Amino acid sequence: MRQVKTLGLLGTGVIGGGWAARALHFGIDVLAADVKPEMETWIRGAVANAEGALSRLTFAPLPPKGRLSFTTDLRAMARQADFIQENIPEQLELKQRVLADVSRHAPGDVVIASSTSGLLPSELQRDMEAPQRFLVAHPFNPVYLLPLVELVGGEHTSPQALAAAGSFYRYIGMHPLKVRREVPGHLTDRLQEALWREILHLVNDGVATTGELDDSIVYGPGLRWAGMGTNLIYHLAGGESGMRHMLRQFGPCLQWPWTKLEAPELTEELIDRMVEGTQAQANGRSIRELERLRDDYLVAIQQVLRQYNIGAGATLRALEERLYEQSGAVACPGIESALSSDSGEALRLIETHVRPEWVDYNGHMTDSRYLQVFGDATDTLFRYIGVDDDYRKSGRALYTVETHVTHNAEAKAAEALYVTTQVLAVDDKRVHLFHCLNRRRDDALIATAEQLYLHVNTAAGKAAPMESLVRARLEKIRAAQAGLAVPAQAGRSVGMSRT
Amino acid sequence: MRQVKTLGLLGTGVIGGGWAARALHFGIDVLAADVKPEMETWIRGAVANAEGALSRLTFAPLPPKGRLSFTTDLRAMARQADFIQENIPEQLELKQRVLADVSRHAPGDVVIASSTSGLLPSELQRDMEAPQRFLVAHPFNPVYLLPLVELVGGEHTSPQALAAAGSFYRYIGMHPLKVRREVPGHLTDRLQEALWREILHLVNDGVATTGELDDSIVYGPGLRWAGMGTNLIYHLAGGESGMRHMLRQFGPCLQWPWTKLEAPELTEELIDRMVEGTQAQANGRSIRELERLRDDYLVAIQQVLRQYNIGAGATLRALEERLYEQSGAVACPGIESALSSDSGEALRLIETHVRPEWVDYNGHMTDSRYLQVFGDATDTLFRYIGVDDDYRKSGRALYTVETHVTHNAEAKAAEALYVTTQVLAVDDKRVHLFHCLNRRRDDALIATAEQLYLHVNTAAGKAAPMESLVRARLEKIRAAQAGLAVPAQAGRSVGMSRT
Repeated sequence: MRQVKTLGLLGTGVIGGGWAARALHFGIDVLAADVKPEMETWIRGAVANAEGALSRLTFAPLPPKGRLSFTTDLRAMARQADFIQENIPEQLELKQRVLADVSRHAPGDVVIASSTSGLLPSELQRDMEAPQRFLVAHPFNPVYLLPLVELVGGEHTSPQALAAAGSFYRYIGMHPLKVRREVPGHLTDRLQEALWREILHLVNDGVATTGELDDSIVYGPGLRWAGMGTNLIYHLAGGESGMRHMLRQFGPCLQWPWTKLEAPELTEELIDRMVEGTQAQANGRSIRELERLRDDYLVAIQQVLRQYNIGAGATLRALEERLYEQSGAVACPGIESALSSDSGEALRLIETHVRPEWVDYNGHMTDSRYLQVFGDATDTLFRYIGVDDDYRKSGRALYTVETHVTHNAEAKAAEALYVTTQVLAVDDKRVHLFHCLNRRRDDALIATAEQLYLHVNTAAGKAAPMESLVRARLEKIRAAQAGLAVPAQAGRSVGMSRT
Repeated sequence: MRQVKTLGLLGTGVIGGGWAARALHFGIDVLAADVKPEMETWIRGAVANAEGALSRLTFAPLPPKGRLSFTTDLRAMARQADFIQENIPEQLELKQRVLADVSRHAPGDVVIASSTSGLLPSELQRDMEAPQRFLVAHPFNPVYLLPLVELVGGEHTSPQALAAAGSFYRYIGMHPLKVRREVPGHLTDRLQEALWREILHLVNDGVATTGELDDSIVYGPGLRWAGMGTNLIYHLAGGESGMRHMLRQFGPCLQWPWTKLEAPELTEELIDRMVEGTQAQANGRSIRELERLRDDYLVAIQQVLRQYNIGAGATLRALEERLYEQSGAVACPGIESALSSDSGEALRLIETHVRPEWVDYNGHMTDSRYLQVFGDATDTLFRYIGVDDDYRKSGRALYTVETHVTHNAEAKAAEALYVTTQVLAVDDKRVHLFHCLNRRRDDALIATAEQLYLHVNTAAGKAAPMESLVRARLEKIRAAQAGLAVPAQAGRSVGMSRT
C-alpha cells in the first residue's frame, strides 16, 4: 500500500468535512470530491470552523498544513488520491454503485475506506475492482477531535489493507479499533443504539424528558466513560473479586424488566417530544454555539486524560511523541547547521503562533505564555541533547534556577513567532541559556529570556553532574556559538534606576 | 424537615463509605450503623482512601470536616441522625423490614432515603412509620466524586421530603435529578443496563473482548458524554434542523437488527470470558490502583468542565460559589491592614493551589505557571489601585517591562500556596514590584518574582503618567512598606559566576 500524501474524500458532508480538517491539520493534502459544486464553499467553511479547536488540541510541533482542493469529478479524485475515504449518504445501493465506479479508477494499491456507521463491508465491496483494499473505517463526530475509528474488514479485505489503514489513521492522531467480525452497527453504534432506544421509550412513556435523560448520564456514568468503559468500571465496583462478583450480584437484574426491548414506534407525537426536549436543552443556543462548547470541552478533557495516559489521552500522547520525534529531524535544522559549522548562529528551535486563549485583557500575549514558549524552546533543546523521558526516568533532570524576561514589543493574537537560543555557558552541573522571541513577519525582537538551569539527581534532590554525552552536546553548541556577541539584555537586573 | 448536622448511615459497604466520605468532607457529621462491628475499621479506611481525591476536587474554602462515629445499634443511630441514608443489600424483604423498624425510632421530621439502584420507593415504604418522609436517592460510584443522585418518590412520599433531600444533597456538592415516575432501575441504570446487555451479547458471540468494547466507548462517545448527553449530541449531529433531522435520518435504523434484545444467559463460559477480559484490561493493576487512576481523572475532568460551566462542572461551580459565600472571606484583607497601619507587612494577595494540569514531567509546577500565579497577584493589586477594565477602556494600562524569577524549592500538585507582594518603588510612569510565592503548610519560600511595569497610553503606544489616584494608592502602599528590607533576590541578574 502506498504512503499517503493526498487523502481523497468521496462526499463532503459533516463527516467528510471532519476528515478534511483532521487530515489537513496533520499535514496531509486533501482532494475533496462531491458532485454538488456548492459543497466546495461548505467544506472550506467546515475546515475553517474546526481549526479553532484543533489548534488547541496539541502544542507539539506540527508539519506544514496540508492543502485542500475540490473537484466535482469523482473519477479524477480516484486517479490522484493515495487513500480514499467515502462519506456519501447511508444507502447500500448508492454506496455499492459509487464505490464500484471509483474502484475502477483508483490504482490497486490505494486503500478505499467507507465511513458507514452500520453497513457491512462484504456487501459494500461486492462489485468493486480490487476489493481486497476496501474496508469500513467508521469515525465519530466531531471527526477532527474524537480519536476513535472502527476498522472492519469484509470477506475480501486483505490484512495489508487493514494494517495500512491503521497506520494512516494513527498518523492523523486517531485510535483505530479493529473489529474482529462484521456485524450491523459495528461495536460502538450497537452500544449507543441500545442506550438510545431506551431513551426513546422513556420519553415515549412520559417518564422523563430528553434533558433529564441526558443529565442522568452526564452527571454520573458519562464522567467515568471519558476514561474507562463499562467493563472496567464494573470490575472496580465488584470489590476484590472484581467482575466475577459483579456478575454474581447483578446478573439476576438482567432478567428484571429494567429495559424495554423492541424499539418504540416513531410517532409524530414522540418526534415532537424529542424535538421540543432538545430545543429546551439548547436553550436558545445555536448549533454553532453548542458545537463550539462541545469542541472546547473535548479538547480540554483530552489534555487532562493525556496526563493520566488513558483513553483518548494516551492517543494524544502517542501522537505528540511522534510529532516531537518527527520535528527533531525536520523542524530544527538550526541545531544541525550550528553543529556542522562554526557559523555561530543562534539555534532556531521553536515556531509558534499566539493562540487566541493566550491573549490577555490588553489584547497582548499574557506574561506567563512567554515563559511557556521559552519553556518549549528549552524542552526542544533538552530533547536534542538527550534529556528526555528516559533520561528523567533514570533519576536525573535539569531544573530551572532563575529566569529573567525582558519585553520589547507586544505579540498579538495569531501572530507567527519563533525562538532562537544561545548557550551562553555550561559547566558540569549548570547551563546558562539565552532565548530571543521574534515576530516572523518582520523578525522584530518581542522578548528575551535568560535562564539558568541546574542539573540534579532527582531522588536525592541534589545538584549532580550531568551525563558526559549531554554535557558534550551542550559544549559543542556553546563552542559553535562562541563567536556570537553576548546579548545586551544578558546579565541585567530589574530596576527603575536604569531607564 | 430538620437541618442536617448528622447523617445516619444504615449499612456501610462501598456505597455507605462513599456517602460518609462526601458528607464528612463538606462538614456533616456521620453516624454509621452496621450490625457487623468489623465494618467500623472498613468504613474508616474507605473514608481515608477517598480523602486524597476529594481534597483536590475543589480549592474553595471548606467548613471544618465532620466527625465520623460508628455503632452496631441501628435504632440508636435512628434516634440521633437528622437524615438517614440506607445502603444495605439489594433485597426487597430485607430492606422493607429494616426500613420499617428504623422508621419507628427516627423522629417524623427525619428524611429516610434508600440508595437502591432498582427497587421501587412505593414498595420500600410500604411498612414504614411516617412513609411520607421516605424516598429513593440513588448515587453512583464513587459517591464521593460523582455528583449524580436520582431522587424518586413513592406513592406516599411528600413534596417536602423530596425538597429537603434535594437541598441536603446539593449542600454536599451533588446534582439531584428528580425522576418523575417510579420505574424499575430509575433512569440511569435503565440506560446503563441496555448498553451492558449488548456488551454481554457481543462478548458471548465472540464479536469483541471486554477491552475492545470499552475502547469503543472511551475513545469516542464516552468523551462526549462527560459534557453532553446522547440527545443534545444527536441534536448537534442533525445540522440546522437538529433532532428532527436526526430522527428522520436515523429513525429507520431502529428497526435494523443492530442490537440483541433479550439478555444472554450468563453461562459459566460467558462469565469466564467477561472475567478474563477485564483482568486483561486491569493488566496487573490492583483494584486500589485502578481506583486511584479513576479518581484522578474524575477530579481533573470536573475541574475542566467547571471552566465551561457544563454538567458536573456546573455543579462544582455552584458548590464553590456557595462555599466562598459561606466562608465570608474578604478577598484581600492584607491590603486593608497594610494601608490602615504602618506595620509595613508585604501584601498577601493570592491564595491558590497547584492544579493537577500545572504540573510538568518532573512532577513540579511548570515554569510558566509561576508567572501565571505572580500575574494573578499583580492583577489583584492593580484592581485594588484602580487599574481595572474601565481604566483600560479609557486607553491607559500598565505593561510588563521585565521580570526576574528565582526558584528556591519545588511546588507539587495540590500544594497550597500564597503570594505576598512588596511595592519597591513607584514614580509617575513606573512601578517596581517584588512577589514571594510561599507554601502554606510551612511558609517555605518557593519562588520570587521581581517585576517592572510601565504605564502607557495604549492608543499612542507610548509611556504616559498614571492617573494621580492610582499613583497615590501605590505610593501609600510603598510608604507603608518602606521599613521592610529589600529582598536579597531583588536587583540580581542571572548568571553562572555567582553560585
